[in-house]
Amino acid sequence: MGWRTTSRSKTGSRSTSFPRRRRPSRPNSCVPARDSPRSAKETRAAGLRGVLGETIIQFPVADAKTPGEALIRAQAFIKEFEHDTLITPAVAPHAIYTNDTQTLKNARMLSIQYSVPTLIHAAETQAEAMTAQERGSPTVVSYLESLGFLGPGVLLAHGVWVNDSDMALIKMRGVGVSHNPESNMKLASGIAPVKAYLAANVAIGLGTDGAASNNDLDMFEAMRTASFLAKVATSDPTAVSAKTALQMATIGGARALGMDKTIGSLEPGKRADIIIVGMSAARQTPMYDPISHLVYVTRGDDVQTTIVNGQVLMRNRKVLTLDRAAVLRESRTWADKVRAAVRP
Amino acid sequence: MGWRTTSRSKTGSRSTSFPRRRRPSRPNSCVPARDSPRSAKETRAAGLRGVLGETIIQFPVADAKTPGEALIRAQAFIKEFEHDTLITPAVAPHAIYTNDTQTLKNARMLSIQYSVPTLIHAAETQAEAMTAQERGSPTVVSYLESLGFLGPGVLLAHGVWVNDSDMALIKMRGVGVSHNPESNMKLASGIAPVKAYLAANVAIGLGTDGAASNNDLDMFEAMRTASFLAKVATSDPTAVSAKTALQMATIGGARALGMDKTIGSLEPGKRADIIIVGMSAARQTPMYDPISHLVYVTRGDDVQTTIVNGQVLMRNRKVLTLDRAAVLRESRTWADKVRAAVRP
Repeated sequence: MGWRTTSRSKTGSRSTSFPRRRRPSRPNSCVPARDSPRSAKETRAAGLRGVLGETIIQFPVADAKTPGEALIRAQAFIKEFEHDTLITPAVAPHAIYTNDTQTLKNARMLSIQYSVPTLIHAAETQAEAMTAQERGSPTVVSYLESLGFLGPGVLLAHGVWVNDSDMALIKMRGVGVSHNPESNMKLASGIAPVKAYLAANVAIGLGTDGAASNNDLDMFEAMRTASFLAKVATSDPTAVSAKTALQMATIGGARALGMDKTIGSLEPGKRADIIIVGMSAARQTPMYDPISHLVYVTRGDDVQTTIVNGQVLMRNRKVLTLDRAAVLRESRTWADKVRAAVRP
Repeated sequence: MGWRTTSRSKTGSRSTSFPRRRRPSRPNSCVPARDSPRSAKETRAAGLRGVLGETIIQFPVADAKTPGEALIRAQAFIKEFEHDTLITPAVAPHAIYTNDTQTLKNARMLSIQYSVPTLIHAAETQAEAMTAQERGSPTVVSYLESLGFLGPGVLLAHGVWVNDSDMALIKMRGVGVSHNPESNMKLASGIAPVKAYLAANVAIGLGTDGAASNNDLDMFEAMRTASFLAKVATSDPTAVSAKTALQMATIGGARALGMDKTIGSLEPGKRADIIIVGMSAARQTPMYDPISHLVYVTRGDDVQTTIVNGQVLMRNRKVLTLDRAAVLRESRTWADKVRAAVRP
């Protein structure tokens, strides 16, 4: 199975740190400084494939005082990585409630100019519709349509609060959706109509969202939860079968990102993005059906070997491209700094 | 933290293999032969604590041709284990739709006679209310009340479809509830009103249910899912906090089983049921809050050492009381037999 082909998109800072406040008047302390070129270099050095978006946000943040500055940064980032084998640069206007109409249009135009993905948090919470309504559209998706924003290459992160017309627009415009069931549950955002997306043949992939709203960043858990949540939400135990969840996590994600010609499945001519999964844990014994087993009982911890673009990144649980101990040590050091900074 | 104190109750065969059929006319092939004394002996030999119920079911099964036979078996089982340090025998009338009124009364009387728990699948699916209505009560819980069934020592497995009157009855009669969020999601049974149970101070614990509807049997996942599901179901991200989920999995389960005087928390005079959890996995790094970390990011695989009743059962991931390889081998052998038996 091709696993890394899910290419978890990084749409930048979490929208949910201020779900009910639109256009905060001062920089929100939960919005971290972003340094997409550095993130991209580290991702590439680790040998990972990734779609990384430079965040565009209306109010001043550490790395851009204005959305104009952010757009200039985004353009430089795109130019630096536009021919990269592993990194796909993207433009990530954060959300409609953190960007005005002109900034949204500019961000989308930049994406189109360079043929890179546009990543946006959209229809994650019910409150977002207020912004759309203030700007004359009933829903987030219809507002984006009114801007000429929707089209191939646009990925809507979450897509929880969409009505039938929104769904039809998403399908008609060739827009992709990233479903993040664990985040939607933890933040009480709502339940995305996944069964309807699938029935409409919308390109829908799976994501974990960030650590704050997940917390384990485990794509196997995302599959399991996507399946479980769709079943209970629709009162249909056959909704989002294990096979469907696996497809959403692989080829579905690739389709949603417009990358299904090169990744998302194991086929001649596609990139060699492969994981080898152990199936001998006590928890996994006995096994009747491999796909059911992958989705309902397997975990990230069961991955033994990871290959991306033909390069072995981890072999028998030993990470070859990163100094594991150093990364964990540095992570703890930064956590200490964060802890000190937020202490009252 | 006391982990094993959750004492996952085993209420016998799964009700959900025939959720919409009441009183099947022939033995259901999904109902396995039960041998509670043998299960209890194996559980005890492994050093585990457990509440094990002898299943009472109206139609003939391999180990009992009639409910009368099942009651005799249950009585013998209770007598054999009534003074055991680790095993708590129980009577487990399967559900109201698989037992008639008299059998339910007899099963409850047997429990009362020997002061052992009564375990019953109750209000798991919406369809169960039909049986109650045929017998003159609007809901499963009100029907059980009409039989004089409800009282301390009764554990309702699932308790999804309960109304306000049912909730008040459950509280008034001192009945416990076992919440099984992953099973309820996978089988599309519905969402239990956990926030309301907690607000009413009902004794509510957490379960995984069986492998067919879970599948990983991981109590950490049960905590995580209980928290996530309650949040999204009530649109309240503070519902069932990490701390509350941890309480449900430990002292909540002990209360629900009427065993909170001896297990469920680490206190002088209580049994030494303890796990030691590793917190150094990459997935767990960095850590800000230990309880949030236990619930949202930790897994059964992170347990390093398990102590039950003061005896070390697993030390640094090495199981001391079972021959791990032999157990896995035997499990695979049985799976082969099952596979052969169900092959068309």
